[in-house]
Formats: sequence, structure tokens, C-alpha cells
Amino acid sequence: MPTTDVSPAALAAAVLDRADRLAACSEEPGRLTRRFAPPALAAAGDLVLGWMGDAGMTARRDAIGNVVGRWEPPGGAAASTLLLGSHLDTVRDAGRYDGMLGVLVALACVERLRDAPFAVEVFGFADEEGVRYGTAYLGSSVVAGTFDRDALGRRDADGVAMADAIAAFGGDPAALDGARRDREDLLGYVEVHIEQGPVLEAEDLPVGVVTGIAGQNRAEVTFAGVPGHAGTVPMALRRDALVAAAELVTAVEARATDGLVATVGELRVEPGASNVIPARARLSVDVRHLDDAAREAAVADLRERARAIASSRGLDVAWTAVQATGAVACSPALMTELEAAVADAGARVVRLPSGAGHDAAVMSNLGDIAMLFVRCAGGISHNPAEAVTAQDVAVAIDVTSRVLDRLGR
Amino acid sequence: MPTTDVSPAALAAAVLDRADRLAACSEEPGRLTRRFAPPALAAAGDLVLGWMGDAGMTARRDAIGNVVGRWEPPGGAAASTLLLGSHLDTVRDAGRYDGMLGVLVALACVERLRDAPFAVEVFGFADEEGVRYGTAYLGSSVVAGTFDRDALGRRDADGVAMADAIAAFGGDPAALDGARRDREDLLGYVEVHIEQGPVLEAEDLPVGVVTGIAGQNRAEVTFAGVPGHAGTVPMALRRDALVAAAELVTAVEARATDGLVATVGELRVEPGASNVIPARARLSVDVRHLDDAAREAAVADLRERARAIASSRGLDVAWTAVQATGAVACSPALMTELEAAVADAGARVVRLPSGAGHDAAVMSNLGDIAMLFVRCAGGISHNPAEAVTAQDVAVAIDVTSRVLDRLGR
Repeated sequence: MPTTDVSPAALAAAVLDRADRLAACSEEPGRLTRRFAPPALAAAGDLVLGWMGDAGMTARRDAIGNVVGRWEPPGGAAASTLLLGSHLDTVRDAGRYDGMLGVLVALACVERLRDAPFAVEVFGFADEEGVRYGTAYLGSSVVAGTFDRDALGRRDADGVAMADAIAAFGGDPAALDGARRDREDLLGYVEVHIEQGPVLEAEDLPVGVVTGIAGQNRAEVTFAGVPGHAGTVPMALRRDALVAAAELVTAVEARATDGLVATVGELRVEPGASNVIPARARLSVDVRHLDDAAREAAVADLRERARAIASSRGLDVAWTAVQATGAVACSPALMTELEAAVADAGARVVRLPSGAGHDAAVMSNLGDIAMLFVRCAGGISHNPAEAVTAQDVAVAIDVTSRVLDRLGR
Repeated sequence: MPTTDVSPAALAAAVLDRADRLAACSEEPGRLTRRFAPPALAAAGDLVLGWMGDAGMTARRDAIGNVVGRWEPPGGAAASTLLLGSHLDTVRDAGRYDGMLGVLVALACVERLRDAPFAVEVFGFADEEGVRYGTAYLGSSVVAGTFDRDALGRRDADGVAMADAIAAFGGDPAALDGARRDREDLLGYVEVHIEQGPVLEAEDLPVGVVTGIAGQNRAEVTFAGVPGHAGTVPMALRRDALVAAAELVTAVEARATDGLVATVGELRVEPGASNVIPARARLSVDVRHLDDAAREAAVADLRERARAIASSRGLDVAWTAVQATGAVACSPALMTELEAAVADAGARVVRLPSGAGHDAAVMSNLGDIAMLFVRCAGGISHNPAEAVTAQDVAVAIDVTSRVLDRLGR
């Protein structure tokens, strides 16, 4: 029996307390904002390093400033290693669980761990949200070896280059390549994260097993028509950019079937006066799916639809691709272990895709990944109202501990 | 033969030259902005007063600062009076013909006039656009006796009360009631104005006879849904405010048939990020028609449609009426004279409604009104690109002079 009899419930209370203490490490008074590399992130990392040491781990920071703790089984150096973790940075005016929960649950599981036939490393990545430099997954990309060195020249809003920020944070921009984790001995990477969506709440379940991380296309679409007086231009002579955009908005929703999600989150009208026929309408289109071919087909359909709408109305349309990332599948083997662990913990097993990106997507470059989602109140994230219950956190600790057990058999 | 042989073409050149000179009277360097009562409007009024005097008119300013010139027939005081005119204020970054053209064409017609069995008064209204105080038709409302004295307490963006602005302009806020024009001796009010729309250009005609000024409803509609992550909230669990707004935008366009024009000119989305499902969408709805019953039926239909869209999507909707004004019909008798004058001038007669408001709508409180529209390039107004041709202005002078002739028979 590798885990102790310290109850998940007791450890869950500690996790919530630690999340509160991390939330006090902020760049801004009165709200939680912790971007890459300011003193607030250093303070949060110091707390985690301390807890790692208390748990008997060898704790350090790597060259980008990720916090890493390594637990070795009592018998001596292990032949293989399981990676756990998530990130410690936040968006502006953030909640206190997005990222941190995964680090703290991993720590709690190590605290319960008495023996295993492998080592465990817990990562607290220094940047996943990418708020400071527009580079999401900075921390995990260094570990996974996908970091783009050109990004070192990027400057933040204050003009500070990323390389200087890394050095000021105690890291070493010249040593980033060496911080790549060797993949040979890895068992995989398992990440616990709040769901950031309403599915588990709707299903009345504490946790869910993630099937993969959806691929995503983002585009900006601009319809250009002719402005005119809302009272004096007959309908037949109009070239109204907003009506075209509205047709595309409804088409985007209608195209979202069979697991595809599609969203228009931004729409701006120019000149934007109640008595002026819109001359330009600019909108964002966000399309996500676990299946890359299904996503790409939907994007192609919508692009053609935008063209047809513009053509039928005598408008110009420009479709600009902003981003395209492929889907990442979770490891079937690790999913099987997670599902068994959920069942062992007494919960009903539900699978769900992740529509949001996570460090696990980047870590998939090193090997197998798996994710466990934890129910969050109202599906709300990136907001101070982000909330989890101690009961659900206890289930997450229980399930993750059981996965460690199962992998050690 | 009451009019001279001074050709409309020669007078049209003078009108365009005078429009250029008025355009130099601006509050802002490099562009034309002439709101109610700053020195720029005084300077423009002084120019017009001078031209009125040169034309043999008795010229003055009234208590609100309107410029008024009165021409009496050579034989002595006339028993009745025909009113002509338009406004001298502008929007910000305006064109040089919206308003001014009607004053200058009226002046040109008086300059051609040698005899008539009635007097002619030409008005240059001090405020029609309402840019400074949000009170459109300020000048004509004083003349028509519909001025609301409560407006005197309104303050502009600099905190200057309207009463103080009137006094500083040389007017007399206490004497506004007395500036009302007595209606007993009036033959009517005829206004020449640029079309501000594309119909005459599409018909390849210099002028058109206005049938009436459309009634207008303006409303602000807000759909309120639930924000969410664009990747993590399944389509079935969304309450997207923008998709609802988009359905209403297309419904507004579809409802605009049989002379009704309907426009959504503003649409704002909150929070307005590409990866966030819209929580709120606020849009303007502008509906106009010459027939009040048709307009009111359309507004009722659209309001019900908004309610049905919100209901089917589990959203809240608020429909706020911002403005509702009834249609004003032009006088059939004066329209007949205008149409005959257009035909006499050798042009094809076309009737068209005015979708924009004009001083004539307010002046209808004093008696019969008529309007002649002049083709403007691209239908563009409220823009420095506003343009008319000398040929079309000559036709407008010719037609208006012929109306004076016809009314004098």
C-alpha cells in the first residue's frame, strides 16, 4: 500500500488553505494578478518550494523559473518518472484555482505517497497564460523542448525584454535548451485542472476524465460595405456590413454540431451610430474540435459562407486566419487508469474534451498525457468568482492517488 | 414677369461661392464644425445678413439668433408672406451644403425677384442639427412656437447653459415666445435641401419633390445572457447574447418592406473578447416610414420578435424606446406647384419621401410646407465629401423661382 492513511479530506482542506496563501501573492492590491516573473510569482514559487521540501522532495527552479520538486521512492533512485503539475501564473484579476489547483493536488498526492516503483516530479510552471509576453505555455515549452528562442527578444508593455525578465527572475536565458526534460525515462504527464466549463456541474459529478485538448482556429473577419443615412437610403440601395456580419454570426452557431464549438465573441461596427448604416463590421470566429479534420472542414465551410454572404450583398470580405492549432489526444492507457481510479473512488465516470488549452498539450511532446477535470462553480474561470469545493478536491486527490497506486502495480 | 433675366446658372455659381465662404466660418481649424451660437455661427450669419441687405431685404436676427430677411414687393406692404429657408449650423466635420444650400438658393431666388403679390421671408436657422445641446430644430421651433423653455437650462459639454449661450450670441432668452411667427398671413414654407440619399443620383435627376418627412422610432435593445469560455461551454448549455442580437439584426432588415426603412447602426458586445461567449449585446433599432400606422406596426412586430428570440434562448431582453416622432406630410397644393415647376424647368418629375428630419417638419406647425431635394454626390452628407453640381443648383434655383411665379399668378 504505497499511500498513507492521511485522508483526502484532510489534504483537501490543506490544498484550499494553500490556494488562499498563493492568492495573496499578487502584483496588484485587492485582486489576484500574477504574470510571468514579477516578485509576486517568485513569492508564490517560494511557498511551493517550501511545501515541496516539507514533503521530502528535492526542490529547485529551472532555467525559465519553473518550480520543480522530485520525489524518489525510499528504495533509492527509480528507473522511471511520472510527471504531475500545472502552472502558477494567472490572468489579470484571476481566480485562485486555475493552474494552482493542479500543483497543489499533485503535492498532496506526494505527501500521501509512501512508496512506488518510480519517481514523481511535480512542476509548477512559471507561465501558461502568456499575459506578459503574449507567449502562452512558456514554462512547459522549455520543459518540453518546444521553446522558440526568438521569443527572448519580445518586450512587455514596459519595454522589458523577456531575456532580461528571465535573468531578473533568477533564471538563465542561455541555459533554456538544457532545461528540456529528457523523455526516455518518463511514464507520462498527468494534470489536474478546474474544468472551466459547466459540464461536470450539469452532470453533478466532482471530476471528469479528459479525452483530449481540442484543436482551435481563430480568425478575424471584416465585411466592408457603404455607409449611409439610416433614413434616406432605400433598403434596395444599401450595402450594410452589419447585416452581413449578423448572418455569419448565426451561421457560425448553426455549424457547431457533433462536438464542434464555435463562437463569435467580438463584433465591432463602424461608424457605430444609430442613424448611420454600418460601413464595416469586424468579428472574431473561434472554432474548436477534438477532431482536426472536422474542425478544418467547419472553418472552410464558414469561410465560404462569409464569401457567399458578401457576394450576395455586394460587400467586400476579408478572412484573416489568426491562429490554428491541432488537437492533442490524451493517452488511452492513462485514460483507462484514470477511469478505473474514478470508479474505484466511487464516482460515476464521465469523459469530456477540453476546449481550453493546457500545459498538458505542450507536455504531449514528451510522451503520454492525461488530465483530470475538477468541477468548478458555474463553470466560471479567469474571474475572482472561481470556486471549487473541498469535497471535490478530496475526490481529485483520492483519484490521483489511486492512479499512482495503479501505475505502481 | 416677376423674375429677372439673371440666369439660374450665373446665380448657381454665386451660391457655390457663398457656400465656400460660409464653410470658412468654423469652430475648428481645417474642418467645418459650426454648432449653435459660437463666433463661427455669428460670422456665418453676418455674411448672410450682408447678402440679404444687398438683395434689398430688411435683415435682422431674432431672439434665438436666427437670421431673417424680408423682401417686400415694390408696390408696398403685402398682405401675405411666403417663407423660405433652412439652417446655418452644421454637425462636426461637416459638409458645406446641408442646410446652407437652402438658405443660399432662397437668397438667389429673391435676387431674381422683381415683383410678386406677396412678401418673401428667408430664414437661416441657428440650430437644426442640435449638436451642442442635443436639441434638434432649436431655431425653427422658436419660429414655429414649439420651443420648450425647459431646454434653456440644458448645459453643453463645457457646462454653459443654453440661456447664457443665447445671450452671449446677442439673443434674448426672455423674448423667445415673442419670436414666434404669426401664422395668419402665411402662404407656407418651402425648403430646398440636399437629398442626403442616393435616390436622385440613381434616377439621374437634378431635383426631386418631397412627399413628406418620415416618422421615426428609435429604440435601444439589450440582450443579456451568460458569459462563458468559448472552448469549454457546450453549445447546448450556452446563453449567447450576440447570436440573439444577430437574429434581431436580420429580422429588422427583413421587416423593412413597402417604403419602411429600418436600420441597426450600433451593436456593442460585452465582454467582447474572441474567446468569451458574449454576455450582453446592445443594439440600436431605427425605423422610419411616411405612414405612422405602418411604422408603429413594424416597431410592435420587432419588439415582439426580440421577446420571442430572447425567450427561445433563455435570455433577458430590454427594449427601451428612445424617440418616437410622427410623420409630416407635405402640402398637396404646394407639391402640385413644385411638380409643375419641375416640369416647366424641363426635368422629369420624381416624388420621394424624406427619411431625415428637416426644419420643414417643425415649420409645419405654422401651415403648409413643401421641400425640394437636390441631388448630392453619392448620397453623402454629414461629411466633408458632401457635394452638389452647379448645374443641379441652377435647376433648383430655376424650379424655386418658377414656384414663386406660379404662386404669384
